[in-house]
Amino acid sequence: MSVSTNTVTSLPGPDPQASFRQERENQKFDPVQMHYFLEGSKARAEAIKRLTQQMERDPVLASDSSIYDLNKEQQRELTAVKINRMARYIENDDPKDFNLRMSLFGLFDPQVATRIGINLGLFLSCVRGNGTPEQIEYWTFNKETAGLKSIYGCFGMTELAHGSNVAGLETTATYDEATEEFVINTPHIGATKWWIGGAAHSSTHCSVYARLIVKGKDYGVKTFVVPLRDSNHDLMPGVTVGDIGAKMGRDGIDNGWIQFSDVRVPRFFMLQKFCKVSKEGKVTLPPLEQLSYSALLGGRVSMVLDSYRMSAKMSTIALRYAVARRQFKGSSSSDGKETQLINYPLHQRRLFPYLAQAYVLSAAALKVEHTIEQTLDDLDAAVASNDMPAIMRSIDGMKSLFIDSGSLKSTSTWLGAEAIDQCRQACGGHGYSSYSGFGKAYNDWVVQCTWEGDNNVLAMSVGKPIVRSISEVLDKGKKVRGSTSFLNHTKENLGETPVISNVSDLQDLKKILTAIEVLIMRLGADAVKTIKANGGNQDSVSPQLVVISKLKANHYALEEYIRRVDTHDNSELKPYLLSLGRLYAASMIIDRFAGDFLTYSVLSTKVVAENNSINLPKLCEEVRPHVITYTDSFQLSDMIINSAIGKFDGNVYENYFGIVKANNPPFKTKAPYSGSLEAMLNRPAKEERERFEKIGQAKQFLSKGL
Amino acid sequence: MSVSTNTVTSLPGPDPQASFRQERENQKFDPVQMHYFLEGSKARAEAIKRLTQQMERDPVLASDSSIYDLNKEQQRELTAVKINRMARYIENDDPKDFNLRMSLFGLFDPQVATRIGINLGLFLSCVRGNGTPEQIEYWTFNKETAGLKSIYGCFGMTELAHGSNVAGLETTATYDEATEEFVINTPHIGATKWWIGGAAHSSTHCSVYARLIVKGKDYGVKTFVVPLRDSNHDLMPGVTVGDIGAKMGRDGIDNGWIQFSDVRVPRFFMLQKFCKVSKEGKVTLPPLEQLSYSALLGGRVSMVLDSYRMSAKMSTIALRYAVARRQFKGSSSSDGKETQLINYPLHQRRLFPYLAQAYVLSAAALKVEHTIEQTLDDLDAAVASNDMPAIMRSIDGMKSLFIDSGSLKSTSTWLGAEAIDQCRQACGGHGYSSYSGFGKAYNDWVVQCTWEGDNNVLAMSVGKPIVRSISEVLDKGKKVRGSTSFLNHTKENLGETPVISNVSDLQDLKKILTAIEVLIMRLGADAVKTIKANGGNQDSVSPQLVVISKLKANHYALEEYIRRVDTHDNSELKPYLLSLGRLYAASMIIDRFAGDFLTYSVLSTKVVAENNSINLPKLCEEVRPHVITYTDSFQLSDMIINSAIGKFDGNVYENYFGIVKANNPPFKTKAPYSGSLEAMLNRPAKEERERFEKIGQAKQFLSKGL
Repeated sequence: MSVSTNTVTSLPGPDPQASFRQERENQKFDPVQMHYFLEGSKARAEAIKRLTQQMERDPVLASDSSIYDLNKEQQRELTAVKINRMARYIENDDPKDFNLRMSLFGLFDPQVATRIGINLGLFLSCVRGNGTPEQIEYWTFNKETAGLKSIYGCFGMTELAHGSNVAGLETTATYDEATEEFVINTPHIGATKWWIGGAAHSSTHCSVYARLIVKGKDYGVKTFVVPLRDSNHDLMPGVTVGDIGAKMGRDGIDNGWIQFSDVRVPRFFMLQKFCKVSKEGKVTLPPLEQLSYSALLGGRVSMVLDSYRMSAKMSTIALRYAVARRQFKGSSSSDGKETQLINYPLHQRRLFPYLAQAYVLSAAALKVEHTIEQTLDDLDAAVASNDMPAIMRSIDGMKSLFIDSGSLKSTSTWLGAEAIDQCRQACGGHGYSSYSGFGKAYNDWVVQCTWEGDNNVLAMSVGKPIVRSISEVLDKGKKVRGSTSFLNHTKENLGETPVISNVSDLQDLKKILTAIEVLIMRLGADAVKTIKANGGNQDSVSPQLVVISKLKANHYALEEYIRRVDTHDNSELKPYLLSLGRLYAASMIIDRFAGDFLTYSVLSTKVVAENNSINLPKLCEEVRPHVITYTDSFQLSDMIINSAIGKFDGNVYENYFGIVKANNPPFKTKAPYSGSLEAMLNRPAKEERERFEKIGQAKQFLSKGL
Repeated sequence: MSVSTNTVTSLPGPDPQASFRQERENQKFDPVQMHYFLEGSKARAEAIKRLTQQMERDPVLASDSSIYDLNKEQQRELTAVKINRMARYIENDDPKDFNLRMSLFGLFDPQVATRIGINLGLFLSCVRGNGTPEQIEYWTFNKETAGLKSIYGCFGMTELAHGSNVAGLETTATYDEATEEFVINTPHIGATKWWIGGAAHSSTHCSVYARLIVKGKDYGVKTFVVPLRDSNHDLMPGVTVGDIGAKMGRDGIDNGWIQFSDVRVPRFFMLQKFCKVSKEGKVTLPPLEQLSYSALLGGRVSMVLDSYRMSAKMSTIALRYAVARRQFKGSSSSDGKETQLINYPLHQRRLFPYLAQAYVLSAAALKVEHTIEQTLDDLDAAVASNDMPAIMRSIDGMKSLFIDSGSLKSTSTWLGAEAIDQCRQACGGHGYSSYSGFGKAYNDWVVQCTWEGDNNVLAMSVGKPIVRSISEVLDKGKKVRGSTSFLNHTKENLGETPVISNVSDLQDLKKILTAIEVLIMRLGADAVKTIKANGGNQDSVSPQLVVISKLKANHYALEEYIRRVDTHDNSELKPYLLSLGRLYAASMIIDRFAGDFLTYSVLSTKVVAENNSINLPKLCEEVRPHVITYTDSFQLSDMIINSAIGKFDGNVYENYFGIVKANNPPFKTKAPYSGSLEAMLNRPAKEERERFEKIGQAKQFLSKGL
């Protein structure tokens, strides 16, 4: 059974494809049906396939292993060429299709997705969220920005010395009544706009966050549209931009810095949906200023979707490799061959949680995506009709959305980063090859943990209102509405009564949900005490706030996953979905929050121990026979996977060797720098290079009389 | 107080240096004295300074921010040029100095260190560990390999389909009595030597791990010296090498693949310290084969030292940035300025454990470094004099060393990776800039978690003998010797009695050591039960084995740290060292093993809760005033730090902006690829590009009669 009949082999080599054939012959459910579940509908699943086919055939958009060999300049150029090509699709696509296209790009070439997303998602969201109807109409449609035409925007929020604290930004926009203009100025190095994606080489306009100064009074940070480049793509006077240079990843994005030296823009370039400045310099302050910070929400929500897709892609690669790879003759080796990695309990324990994570996060992503659309539409309608009760309802909705998107963004991007790293390690040495796909994925990914709301800052800002609600429920009997309404039951759930005291209860996902709720209550009530002991200082419990945020995100995801499994129309899938849900919950308890569950006696010691030694191994056994089907269900084609060791056919060694040889032809046996090495190896002896002047005759001669 | 008097500023900018001056004015202990402690002696600390000065002044060896902008080809070339330069130092250096030099290189340019280390550390270690005295003499000294001259070796162990399972390697070395030669052959693609550092372009020789086949009989894997290139650096016939291509990091290393197609080497090229093959093909098998696998031990030990240095460097950058950076007006803001990140409790909780980690790991690194030297010397002496009792003692020593180095290598490299990642995140967005130093550090580092003994495989292989010992102590009353002798007390420590039931006991580091010991015993005893229930299958408890290995490493490090603090001659440093030791232990309990300590009732619930809410915040407060002095104590010069935001002077914004501008001059305001973007933005309308053939007259004309 020699696999490589195309080359001479002295002995038969490994045949990983045989393992794949065997796994797929035993397929127990239909991956296409499962894909409908994961994407929420057959229509969306089919759209994804249709769009993928279009892109993998497109000569410009298609990606392959060669991207792993590009340097920064090549990545920058390729990304620009792809954006130019995408401009032809945006003219043709239904907007929903284009969004899906962007979501897929986020998975196989995230730099393209980001570079377009900054323009459509951040610049235009800022205009939409802060502009008058005319300003929105003009910059979005009249100027065809929404069609990647004429204007290309960037998002000028962050400064060198200010990121998370938007209210502390220092760029100034001083109103000059004489000319009816704003003067935009960078007062010092710390206020240099920094990290601005697209600024270095792409953007024509920037939505600048700057302090509004009128008649010497500082009205705080507002937004202004400031042109950076003219239609000939030359820099405007007074505008300095530079390239921020090399980054850990996403080198294809031209992040830049911007300094404004008294750049003047007309009064009507200030976005004035809320705050208005009249000709004469009369400032009307917004009644609902909090509504003006919604530009980042859409991005946060889409990162949850990215986290699902990335977890799916990474676990697919690592699980396929684990099926293909054999190492050591373990206890489950029966056929004389070495054991497949996938059959080692440790390997299952390491990888299956990330597979389950992809499934659970898909539910959360779909829900929060739907919620933001609904909430923003409701708000727009309420503001347009000036319906105050509806506006207040919308504000409640926004508050819930802030908590949900903030906890989900931070938690899911952390989980995504962990999935990439752990899946890489599970592929051993080969995980370190660029061609396996993990390195670039990680480097491109991890910025999600610090951008558009640093994860720790976000998590704290989610934890704070939750703890405040707990305090108000306990001290004032206040009623909480929205996604944290379970907090109303805090009082009766304090103490040390375990929610789960029998390991078999872990089969019941709803019980686990209750356990998470009770843990949040007890942890939060404890935090309330500590805050009081620290004179009301919430920072004193900041590590606990982060834990609460993570628990909240897990609760959201698991709750929606359960709901979707319960209500899904294909009941044949249900047992396979439940196994993954239980595995996700069980490993979350052990790997992430065991200390917390035990400290607050939400689970008994016995349950935690048996979860680890009995329940989790049992769940891994349940999942094991279906790993290939579970991963095939993500329906990720080889172009999207783009991994030498993770292709559909499982022929890992031939695929990997083939890519290595194609991308690094062995014909040139000497490196261009071989001369340095040869000069070193063949150098004359030290004494000779020292002109023999420390030894022999020289030594005798020189040391005379010394 | 305008800082930037060199440029025009409209308003005063941030003055981070003022914060540094203030911290250093309040310095409470001498960082130079602390450095002596960290390096184990004044002599070694001073040698490090002397060597650093030499290297930072050397025109070839010195590094700066430009390395963050190099592509793979440039990194490869630069690395080769630096190796050539290092060859001049190795001729001059005392061997101890050269080792220190390599250790420092591991910190500021690890690719150079690795590429030399493969030759001196792996190839020559293999020759030393497996060769006859003549073979050692010849390849190490006669051929001047040890002086980076004439011969350059690589280490041919791993194959495409085999990494961790060395005994399963498939390259063959078949003895041909007729010519007294071995025929080296790669029988199929899976046996292609893979990941071989230095093979692609550098090495002249390879220590090949291959199956010894004599007269049709397979004697298992032995080692052979096989020339790859002649003295003209041309490939030998039958030898194919190729470049493995792009990697997640360390692109400056020319990892390669090798295929041997019936390459013949003389009989005396087989390394025959243990196993011997006579002219006639008589094979004498080694009496102590386990001694032949020591080549990797040295590398594992040096990775513990690397982990200390890397944790030191990363925490220095992140803590300096935290002192410089201000964000939000938190509760500790008194002067009207925003609060320094360093003064936020969460930021302290996130970063201080990595500072403490560096201190604690330094102790472990020094001890295990000393132990391996001692053990290998003892073994060599014992083998040379054929002193069997001494050999058996050495084998015991080797077994302890295997456990200690295996648990430390895996645990400390994981901790190192975590330190880099967490320190990067603590610097927010700026951590993602290449010039901050985190990205390259991470990408270069994480291979340490999978190479030279995959961390999970190593951790399991450490956990197994520990659990076996526990089983033997419990069932057979066996006595354990060496570093796990505390296991002899397993029986009396089972049950649920807490070792620590009062939070104040956490001040006593020896009590914490006992707590770790008892946790290992209880966890191990539980594992013994599970193994029995699973028919003796140790794989069934593999996740627990990994936890045991991590606990063992923490125990080793903390025990040695306590010993060194207790016996250090400068008693003024002691309180500062104890704070860090306690902080390390306290955060280890909460962040890594809280679930385990509680599940096995080693600590009471109350202690864990109070550790989190009282003890850890208190320790953070103790450490806070000295962070700059603690980090200055690592005595890392700006060249070694090589971070735009982590320099000694704390002038983060000017330094960072300066590097960005120098490495990416803003003069060229259009990118080379600007044409693609301009073509997109200024493209004619879609209808025009579609030749108006879907609308207007064409539409009317074409749709006639349809």
